[in-house]
Amino acid sequence: MTLLGSKGVDQTQNLFQGSWTKVSCPCCVSDQVEPLVLIRLSEKVQPITKRWLISLIETSERHGGAALLAHPGEDECGDVIVVSAPRCTLLKATEDLGLCKKYQDGDMIAFSYQDRDNFSNVDDMQEFLTLAERQYIVKNELDSLQAQKKQKIPGIGDATGVLQAWENVCQKLVKAGVIKDIFPLHDQQKLKELGKKWYSGKQIWGQPLDEIHSYFGGTVAFYFSFLDFYTWSLVPCAFLGVFFTFLMSGVGSSVEVMEKQANERVMGDGDGPSVSGHMVQAVFSMLWSTLFMEFWKRRSSSLSYRWGTLQLSEGFAEPRPGFHGTQGINPVTGRMEPLFPEWKRQLRVGLVSVPIVGLFMGLVVVGMTGFYYGEALAKGFHQDSGSWFSKGLLYLPSVVHIVYTNMLGNVYSTVAMQLTEWENHREESSFQNHHTTKVLLFTFFNNFAVLFHIAFYKQDLVLLRKRLASLLIVTQLVNQCTEVLVPFIVDCFVKATQKKQQEDDPEVDKLRAQNLPCFPGLFSEYIELLVQFGYLSLFSCVYPLTAVFLLINNVMEIRGDSYKICKLFRKPFSAPVSDIGVWQTAFEVLSFVSVMSNCWLLLLSPRVQEFCLEGGISSTNILLFAILVEHVLILVKMILAFMIPDEPDWVRIKREQMEFYSMQALGQQKL
Amino acid sequence: MTLLGSKGVDQTQNLFQGSWTKVSCPCCVSDQVEPLVLIRLSEKVQPITKRWLISLIETSERHGGAALLAHPGEDECGDVIVVSAPRCTLLKATEDLGLCKKYQDGDMIAFSYQDRDNFSNVDDMQEFLTLAERQYIVKNELDSLQAQKKQKIPGIGDATGVLQAWENVCQKLVKAGVIKDIFPLHDQQKLKELGKKWYSGKQIWGQPLDEIHSYFGGTVAFYFSFLDFYTWSLVPCAFLGVFFTFLMSGVGSSVEVMEKQANERVMGDGDGPSVSGHMVQAVFSMLWSTLFMEFWKRRSSSLSYRWGTLQLSEGFAEPRPGFHGTQGINPVTGRMEPLFPEWKRQLRVGLVSVPIVGLFMGLVVVGMTGFYYGEALAKGFHQDSGSWFSKGLLYLPSVVHIVYTNMLGNVYSTVAMQLTEWENHREESSFQNHHTTKVLLFTFFNNFAVLFHIAFYKQDLVLLRKRLASLLIVTQLVNQCTEVLVPFIVDCFVKATQKKQQEDDPEVDKLRAQNLPCFPGLFSEYIELLVQFGYLSLFSCVYPLTAVFLLINNVMEIRGDSYKICKLFRKPFSAPVSDIGVWQTAFEVLSFVSVMSNCWLLLLSPRVQEFCLEGGISSTNILLFAILVEHVLILVKMILAFMIPDEPDWVRIKREQMEFYSMQALGQQKL
Repeated sequence: MTLLGSKGVDQTQNLFQGSWTKVSCPCCVSDQVEPLVLIRLSEKVQPITKRWLISLIETSERHGGAALLAHPGEDECGDVIVVSAPRCTLLKATEDLGLCKKYQDGDMIAFSYQDRDNFSNVDDMQEFLTLAERQYIVKNELDSLQAQKKQKIPGIGDATGVLQAWENVCQKLVKAGVIKDIFPLHDQQKLKELGKKWYSGKQIWGQPLDEIHSYFGGTVAFYFSFLDFYTWSLVPCAFLGVFFTFLMSGVGSSVEVMEKQANERVMGDGDGPSVSGHMVQAVFSMLWSTLFMEFWKRRSSSLSYRWGTLQLSEGFAEPRPGFHGTQGINPVTGRMEPLFPEWKRQLRVGLVSVPIVGLFMGLVVVGMTGFYYGEALAKGFHQDSGSWFSKGLLYLPSVVHIVYTNMLGNVYSTVAMQLTEWENHREESSFQNHHTTKVLLFTFFNNFAVLFHIAFYKQDLVLLRKRLASLLIVTQLVNQCTEVLVPFIVDCFVKATQKKQQEDDPEVDKLRAQNLPCFPGLFSEYIELLVQFGYLSLFSCVYPLTAVFLLINNVMEIRGDSYKICKLFRKPFSAPVSDIGVWQTAFEVLSFVSVMSNCWLLLLSPRVQEFCLEGGISSTNILLFAILVEHVLILVKMILAFMIPDEPDWVRIKREQMEFYSMQALGQQKL
Repeated sequence: MTLLGSKGVDQTQNLFQGSWTKVSCPCCVSDQVEPLVLIRLSEKVQPITKRWLISLIETSERHGGAALLAHPGEDECGDVIVVSAPRCTLLKATEDLGLCKKYQDGDMIAFSYQDRDNFSNVDDMQEFLTLAERQYIVKNELDSLQAQKKQKIPGIGDATGVLQAWENVCQKLVKAGVIKDIFPLHDQQKLKELGKKWYSGKQIWGQPLDEIHSYFGGTVAFYFSFLDFYTWSLVPCAFLGVFFTFLMSGVGSSVEVMEKQANERVMGDGDGPSVSGHMVQAVFSMLWSTLFMEFWKRRSSSLSYRWGTLQLSEGFAEPRPGFHGTQGINPVTGRMEPLFPEWKRQLRVGLVSVPIVGLFMGLVVVGMTGFYYGEALAKGFHQDSGSWFSKGLLYLPSVVHIVYTNMLGNVYSTVAMQLTEWENHREESSFQNHHTTKVLLFTFFNNFAVLFHIAFYKQDLVLLRKRLASLLIVTQLVNQCTEVLVPFIVDCFVKATQKKQQEDDPEVDKLRAQNLPCFPGLFSEYIELLVQFGYLSLFSCVYPLTAVFLLINNVMEIRGDSYKICKLFRKPFSAPVSDIGVWQTAFEVLSFVSVMSNCWLLLLSPRVQEFCLEGGISSTNILLFAILVEHVLILVKMILAFMIPDEPDWVRIKREQMEFYSMQALGQQKL
């Protein structure tokens, strides 16, 4: 029945076969059970607690269980529980999530449990649902375990062992120290195949996106799709950059000459592009960033259709585990669940979160001001005394500032998480978006406050460009090291130990060995792209070759990131998603800011200043002209964004079809 | 059965009863048939053509007819056909339009013909559908009459009498001169009741919006709701204005003093508000306009729920009569209908319509430039010669410019209509939006080009304010005259003739007497509000009493407009709509422009200039400050607009409920 070709997994399953949960439902009986998720318990957990948890996992949903399959590992005292899911649970969850699956006529439509027989591959769960989807469903079912009434957890003596009615079981067990980790298991055979196609093959371009989606799931696949699309979009910029560079510096020039020229241009004394050239570059980068975002939206919606996430019904599904409120009837779905009024959440966001985030940004500014003040003080002191002691003091402001910034960052990340928890979002995606927005704002502000200070207050363009160039180069170098070199070395070391394990250890230990460091999430990857994107749309006119460097960097980035996620970290759970979420907004906002910034920098550029002086144009007039250009560019940008439809025609038709069908169904159902 | 209490109508019906179409469907049999729509034919039309048309109207939809009820008037040779609709046709059309009706549990849900018995009032068409809806349905059915095959129209000899397959029958008959007009009939009794509540009653505030919606239909009701909401929103501005005025000019000052002060302030030598006062006013007007638009959206969506138009399915219904294309199968609905690819329409809009509209705007600028050039020439000539002839020549540029502008306007209105027709929009709302946008852009440009010229090129603030003030006062005066006084006089005259008719003439002549001038549409009404709104958000800081005057004006406007639509024009067909369409966008765009404009005008104001001179601030710095303020204000505006939900919570819940139901229905239907 099952299609798992991997020897290792087959063996694992055979060993397990004896003690998996017995299924009563005839359609769920299967020759082999696939281990999907591992629950790692504390070593001190008593067998009675483990038995209680297993029975809870096995109990049907009607009786307050998760309706999953569980296996206690080698014996009852072991510290793992392996979890899988029967067919019925998987299918019902597919409907609840609102996933679209292939219908018999080839269209992707929202799966319906009652109509299951008309969907393709519905008999074979390995084909019907991707591995990532199966694992996400298991996690989802575990997460939604709630105590039906106030009860004691067997084997835990003290007050921590009391479950209140409607309390979330898994969260409670994590708090009580019973559960240490819950993570999805790798399928080594599939992982090897994926790796071959992805990073160890010979192709440099292109990624096996469908396989990535099927193995790692929505959020990961969308990140790599975006990275892929972004890298491809750099090609025209790179060509243009090469063209400009060679056109300007003759045929025989080497890269050093170009670099030198670029540097000269920064200093304002080279023979760089003219004012009109600057303008052309600014307009091009504005057009490019707009078209890039608009076409990404189209790409995103077609990927979403292909991966069946166009009709996700998160709002109608059960709330996320952390959500709490008074028990009541959801007015939309009519189900019993915790309720929390929307206005209360908005008040919390508006009256507490926003001011606190603002406060932290203020603290960043305070830190920066303090740093500049301290630096000036130290310099003055050194000039006055000139001793060794005072020379040492010169470094003090920097050191204090770095320590201060780091501490602030650490405190903020805790505060951001707790604030977002406290805002009590019903949907996971909403939680993620609010959390990402908070962290993103701070990170950007923390990194860019100095740059903005230089650009807008000091109005020192030369310093700004130097800072930005060094920032980019240092960031790229550090990233390439940490992402490509370190992983490679670590992996060589890890492989050696892994091989040893494969020969000697029992099967369960192999699963336990997957307990690698936790995957750190995609935040840092996305923010790296965002900074790149900002740099490109802001400064490509200064260094025409920026796009070329970024292109090379990103081709390596793809391989580095893919290697990292496959080999160096525990497999992450990844929710089905229909887009890259709040990151799309972040890129769009940045591309708006870049228009303003471009106009401003153009105004400050030595070339323009010189041009004005020569032409006898007053600075007020040139300022007025810059404002006009800015407003026109933003208008053009908005019109372009409005004109280009956010989804391709064929996706629009499919979506409208679904709407039409559901409208008709609603009309006929009430007969 | 019917609830028509009016004597007149009852008599009409009794007279007609004999020769209405016999209905075969048992559920459609009714004691009385209500005359809904009048088709006025040319007097030359032969009885055979009239008989053919009547039979086409009566034929069932399956056989290519309209499935309506028809009555030939007094005799077969008369020039009218009175049309009504049987119950089945009305109910099916209600479902096709996607109208929501009250379900037995009190919720408004999309009407389903199969489930009709569970909807309230479904047995009584007068209660179930509003008069406007019934009439719109009749028009819709008539409009969708198509020739099933190539055929000759009986009684029309020449080539104009040949109907091609799938050709629209009514459009053809209008072209061939058979049909002169199709218009909905007034219900005199209901009209009288409505008038009493609306304009002849003693209440000044408030309008019977539900009755207006029921009698005149969606577009008209939404206009009056918007006018109502806008007028109420002026109250805080008016209070603030009065407060400011009295605070500044003491308690005993009369209106003249205030006016004088305002004028002095314009000239820059009065003791007007300080720079910070200006700023406060600018910020207040920005906040006010944003909040006004956001709360109108909320109001609009709750009205839309109340009036059952939250789920209009125009996209799934039949295309508008003017739509043409190759016959094919609609990929969404699977129905046979003309198809026209979306990209072709977008190309037509982008490559033809946009440049042509731009060309006309260019012609406006050319005209203005010519006017200024001609004026300068004439002035120079007059100074040189100083004769009577040259004095007369001084008026020539103005006269030529006025003639030019008027001609341009007339040509443009034809071009705009033809362009929009040629763009070939499938939905009526899309057609209307594109047409309105075209006319709106031109009208605004035509009216405001001179003002922008004065503000941005001449930078003469005093002249600008004078121009604007005179524009507003003249417009208001002219409007009040044409909208309130003239109608009243005309009505007195009309009433005298109407009374005569009621005694002597046959019933059909009474219906024929409703053939008043065609209702000119709501375009001019909306644009009047738009100009007001622009003036208010731009200049309320100069004349704090603007809002008071506008408030008084609008209270009169409500009465004038309502009187006009009830008494002076033929009743218009009015489609069910869910909002005010493109006008909402126009108001939002204007409120953005007003932020920029406010900042600019603040900068130019003599007070600020003086302040700068005194404070020794360079003009560049004050310009930078203005840019900063502008960007911050726009940011605040966007955040505000984003934070305030576009629909009240209860509407959101209802909408989500509907989505949830239809999702569930889709899942269950396929069993």
